[in-house]
Order: sequence, then structure tokens, then C-alpha cells
Amino acid sequence: MTYRIDIERLRRDIEDLGRLGVDPAGGVSRPSFSRADLEARSWLKARLTEAGLAVRQDGAGNIFGRLEGQGKPVMVGSHIDTVIRAGRFDGAAGVLAGLECLRQVREKAIPHARPLEVAAFTDEEGSLTGDFLGSRAFTGQLNRELIERGLTQIGLPLAEILKGTGLTVESILETGRARPEVEAFLELHIEQGPVLDEEGVPLGLVDHIAGKRYRICSFIGRASHAGTTPLELRQDAFLGLADFALKSTQHVATKHYGSLVTIGKVTVHPGAFSIVPAQADFTLEFRSASGGVLEALDNELLAMAEDIARTRGLSFLSKVLDATEPVAVPARILDILKEECRRLGYPHLTLASGAGHDAQIMSSLTEAGMIFIPSPDGISHSPEESVRGEDLEKGANVLLAALLRLAA
Amino acid sequence: MTYRIDIERLRRDIEDLGRLGVDPAGGVSRPSFSRADLEARSWLKARLTEAGLAVRQDGAGNIFGRLEGQGKPVMVGSHIDTVIRAGRFDGAAGVLAGLECLRQVREKAIPHARPLEVAAFTDEEGSLTGDFLGSRAFTGQLNRELIERGLTQIGLPLAEILKGTGLTVESILETGRARPEVEAFLELHIEQGPVLDEEGVPLGLVDHIAGKRYRICSFIGRASHAGTTPLELRQDAFLGLADFALKSTQHVATKHYGSLVTIGKVTVHPGAFSIVPAQADFTLEFRSASGGVLEALDNELLAMAEDIARTRGLSFLSKVLDATEPVAVPARILDILKEECRRLGYPHLTLASGAGHDAQIMSSLTEAGMIFIPSPDGISHSPEESVRGEDLEKGANVLLAALLRLAA
Repeated sequence: MTYRIDIERLRRDIEDLGRLGVDPAGGVSRPSFSRADLEARSWLKARLTEAGLAVRQDGAGNIFGRLEGQGKPVMVGSHIDTVIRAGRFDGAAGVLAGLECLRQVREKAIPHARPLEVAAFTDEEGSLTGDFLGSRAFTGQLNRELIERGLTQIGLPLAEILKGTGLTVESILETGRARPEVEAFLELHIEQGPVLDEEGVPLGLVDHIAGKRYRICSFIGRASHAGTTPLELRQDAFLGLADFALKSTQHVATKHYGSLVTIGKVTVHPGAFSIVPAQADFTLEFRSASGGVLEALDNELLAMAEDIARTRGLSFLSKVLDATEPVAVPARILDILKEECRRLGYPHLTLASGAGHDAQIMSSLTEAGMIFIPSPDGISHSPEESVRGEDLEKGANVLLAALLRLAA
Repeated sequence: MTYRIDIERLRRDIEDLGRLGVDPAGGVSRPSFSRADLEARSWLKARLTEAGLAVRQDGAGNIFGRLEGQGKPVMVGSHIDTVIRAGRFDGAAGVLAGLECLRQVREKAIPHARPLEVAAFTDEEGSLTGDFLGSRAFTGQLNRELIERGLTQIGLPLAEILKGTGLTVESILETGRARPEVEAFLELHIEQGPVLDEEGVPLGLVDHIAGKRYRICSFIGRASHAGTTPLELRQDAFLGLADFALKSTQHVATKHYGSLVTIGKVTVHPGAFSIVPAQADFTLEFRSASGGVLEALDNELLAMAEDIARTRGLSFLSKVLDATEPVAVPARILDILKEECRRLGYPHLTLASGAGHDAQIMSSLTEAGMIFIPSPDGISHSPEESVRGEDLEKGANVLLAALLRLAA
């Protein structure tokens, strides 16, 4: 028997949720525990309740809606928080597709053995103390140092932001201890990249989720007068960074094709027209679907930076700020997703996810898989983010079919 | 007859002036019309008066001390304003060496035909509306747009800063109309670079002063997700800048040896770990002692940037923020300085000044020359700036001898 989700109802849900946190500057701004996010949480709980699901929230603010069954639950979900000036689909599409699946199961009384749960994880986007607060708390991967170590992105201590939410730093830290066992986890998400759109394929089945390293780094040289210091006597920290940016990109592109390196933030000191830069601070992130490559990159890029520093009379400093490990989607999950795509007649391809997702975090706890739908022009984290209804419909239908296989 | 300055008296003056504007964070902070600068102005006028000079101040706040004579005056001077956390010698050494020369002339009743004037020009360091406000006003090179176009570096309109000084925007603009004719201008200054110190030569005679262009520029690409955008599909604005920084430096070092290019300030947007940079804003300054090379550099560097932008799918924007033209020191002045060095038995070399100076601005009005003394380790614009007493003494003795030749 083949079941289908109601794409019109799913689209309406996405539109309704997208009205919470509309940013006057464009797009949607709904970082975790902002007023808009609190509204969205109430809205979601009301929808889960309407759908006849048992609603609960854990100590990290993760929200669950459950259909009872026997044994460990099969879980589906994503997140409803957003970055600033986001689109309406990153995260929301996954949570609301999960809700629509469970609605179908209940309304049509579709047989299933295991419990089914839809989850919305707190702060996937990392507005508070780093990515994946909710799923990391759920899977017991947080520690006090990590969540207390500093201000949040909006400049307040986490404890301050939690006031009035009923949550505390303690309750977040204890979330992992109380977690239920989970049979499997599925997440539908927009690709956030251009591959599916360029290939003209409506569905992507994720076989690996890339791991990443976030490093903060500095080249340190010596400030000098830009009018009086000959080029060959300079210790220009910015030229060290420029050299590293080009060489590291070239290295990854040629030696580790498919892995990624990005320098996204740069600050030059003292930062004036006529002063040769004494220091160039920058963020360095690199990602790979292979743990071996990630480890190699860490060694190779740091050696490259040290070498550039030596050659240019600079010094180089670096420390890891955050890290996630690459995840391979288990064959059982990937096979089920492939079989259901074929059964439904949907073109699909397998691909690696460069972005991190709650499914990656959940894979420490259970077998986790992901369905991607195309991001037109590869755009996400932008008011211009979009999805095509027919892709979303196909994705949600595969999600439903796979959930039923896993919960059978 | 050979006259000598009193180095002990000159050193005391420099020490006394250096006590005005001591910065708790280190060094001296005495930007024009700060409280410390107003104190320094009073202090200087008192020293000029004590020395028996006729003191006047023009509409731009330039301060002059004069010994009478016949015909157009021979002028000597520099500035007493500083950058933030400066040393005690940049500018001050030139003004106080000039004062010491005129004191010698008066005390020893040294014969001279022309009037002799020592000048301290306002805001050489450009804390208000750009470099050389005082000497530009004196030589009639200011316009209303330039001095009204924005806030000063300390964030107030110029008119606001001038309150209580007796000066106005009008009086600054009118300064050039009332200026006297000048026979010649000499300036003693610290080199602010490493050449004399590295060569172990106590005096540098400047044959050219470099001109410069200050441009603000941007490479503009497209933001995208650092985890999902393949390297070959990125339009990374920062990599465009990195490419340009290395190529432009290489180009100047190989094709225009002796000219300089500096990227001193960089801002990357949006500036986050996981977002491929959409825009890289930066300052570009280049300097050359040759007007032809300066013009060529302007064309070549911009063409290079356009080419890099095209290759990398970026666009490039640039505009000139400020410009000074290179100046050749007239043979008459340079010959007099060389002859007096030889007569006094002082080792010297000729060199170009990469930094701009009031003498450069004054050269639009009269024959101008400069004497450099070594900056140990090339350090200036720093609390660690220093001079050796014996170098300063030699420089001031040559200054006195040359002034007397020009005023004969």
C-alpha cells in the first residue's frame, strides 16, 4: 500500500510558520529563544496537539510529538530556529514534513508497530553557544564548559537568555541522562547547495555527512610605516594570510577533491591605510566526508601555515573552536530510502552533505539518514531561499514510506 | 665660520614637549586640537617668545616664530601633532631643531640677510580631515568640500572641534590667500624607515618625496554556504582579494622596484565561519617617487584587479580617497645640503622619502628640502620610536648651516 502526504497542508504549515519572525530587513529571523522562536514553539505545540500527538518538551527545549506504539520509537525531525534573515525552509521543512507524516499515519490509521515521534531540536543554527545545542544535549554530547564558556551571539550569557523559558543550564546538561532510546532517525532537509538543482534531480539521499573543524587562527608579523618600509623588509601579516588562503584552497581542490576549506571572517590589525598589517586574525573551517581526510587536512593545512609564516618572517597561532566528526549513513537506512524512491518512481541520487545537521549528531545514538530536496540555485541562509512544491512532496512521501518501513 | 647648535638644549626641549600628551596606554597622543595639543601649542609659543622670535598664528593654526631680515623669508619647520600612541620625535624633532637654529642665530647674532622663520604646521598626521591640513591650508591646496566632507577621526565635525580655538572652517580656507611668499623651506625629520639605520649613516638627504594614492576598493562575489558550495562554484570575494594582494605586491616588487603597495585594512562580509565571503573591502595605497610610475601603477593595479575579478566571477569597485604628487627636491637645495654635510664632515646618503611630509606640500610654493636622521630599527608611530642624540645633533647642525646659506 502506498501512502501520500497532503502537500497543500504541508505548504500551508510552512507558510504559517514562516510568518513568525518576519524580519523588516527581509526574510525570517528566528534564532532560538528569541520572541519569534518562542511564538514558533507555541505554534508548533498547538499543531502537534491538533494532530493528536502526545506533546512533550525536554530539558533542552527540544519539542516532541508522539504516536504510541511498541518498543523504541522511530524519530523524524529537524529544527525550527533560523539564522538572521533566513529563508522559510531550512529546518522548518523537515519538522513540518515529519508532522505531516505522523498526521497521515494517525488520520488514515496506518498500521505501525513502533512509536513514531517528530522532533524539533533547539538551536541547530548555533545562535546560543554553538551549533546543535538541542541534539547535542539530547545525545549527551554537551558539557558545562562548552555551554558556559562565553556569551551567546546576541551578547548575553545563556542563563540570561533562558530566563522565562522554564529551562536552565542544569536542565540542558541533564537532558542526555533522561533521553529515551531511539530505533532510527530520519531528517528531510533542503540541500542548501547547488548539486541537485544543477543535476535536475528532485531527491538526494545522503550517504555521508561531512565532519568539520572550526579553527581560529592568526598570522602575526610587525606593524611598520607603509611609506618607508621596503617591501622586502616587511613582515606583513596580511600577505601571509593571502598566501595561505590561495595555497590552502588550491591544496584542497587538487589533493582532496570534494572536501572544502573556507576563510569566512578576517580582521587585520591595526587596520589603517598606511600601516603594514601586524596581525591578521581569521576563521578557518574545513570539511570532509572522510574522517581520515579531515585529520590529514588538519595536519597539512597547519603545516602549510607554519611554513608560510617561517618564509615570511611571521608567526602562526591556531586553536580548534569546534569540531564534528563525519558520519556514514548505515546501509540499512540508505537501502530503505533507495527502495522507497524506486517504488514511488522518484529520480534520486546519493550525495554527501557538506553542511552539518541534527541527523549527524543523532547518529551517535541511533541509525540516522537524510533526504535532501533541491535548493534552487543552491541558495540558503537567505531570504531568497526556496523549494519547489513538487520536490517537497516527493521528499515527504519518501519520508513517510521510510518511517513506516522502520516502524513496521 | 661654522656654527653649532646646543644639543643639550634641543634634547631638553624634546623631553619637555614629550611630556605633553603622555598616553596612559604608552607613548604620546597629541592629535591636533586635543587638550594635549592645545597645551603643546601654548608651550611652543612660550618657547618661541623666550627665544626672542616674533610669534604669529595663521587662520589654520599654523604657528610661526620669526627673526626679521630683508626679502622673502627662509622657513624651517615640521609639526608638533602626533598620531595616537606616538613617539616623541616624529615632527617635534624638526620644529624644535628649527627653533634651536633660530635661537643660535639670534644669540650669536649670526649675520643673515633674509628673515628666518620656524613653522609648526597643524595636523600633519591627518587626525582631522586628512593629512597635512596646516601646510595644505598655508599653500592654498584645501577646498571646502575636502574639509567639510565628513566627520573627523574622533567622530565630530571639524567646526565642533575648532570651537574655543579661535579658528573656523572659514579662517582655514582663507589661510592660503594671506600667505607670505617663501624663499625656501627646510625640514628635519626622523626617517621613519630602516634605511639609514641599516646602512649606519647618520644623515639622509632627501632627493625625492614619494607621491601616493589612497584608494578604497571592494571585490564583490556571492555569499554561499561553506559546507555545501563546491570550491569550483564559489564566487569568494576574499580569495579575489588574496590573489590581488599577492600579485600586486609581486608586480610592484619586480616591475617598479622601490615603489610600494600596501593593503592595510580589510573587512570581509558577511564575516562568519560558514559563509563564503560575498564582499571584501580593503584599502589600497601605493607610493612612488616618480609621477610616471604612480600613474602607471594606478592603471596597472586596477587592470590587475579587474582581471582577477573577471577570472573569479567577481566584480571590482574602487575610488580614490586621497592623492599627493611626488616631489623632486631642487638641485640648488640638495647641493647646499650636500656641501654643508661635507664641510661638517658628516657621512650622508641621498634617499627618497616614502612617507609624505609638510615639505612635500610646501614644494608647491617654494624650493623645499629635507634632512633625515635615522630611526633605530625603522620604528616610528610607536612608543618605541627613538633617535640617537649624535644623529640629531649632526642633523640640526646641517640644518643651521643650510638655513644660513639660503638666508645669506
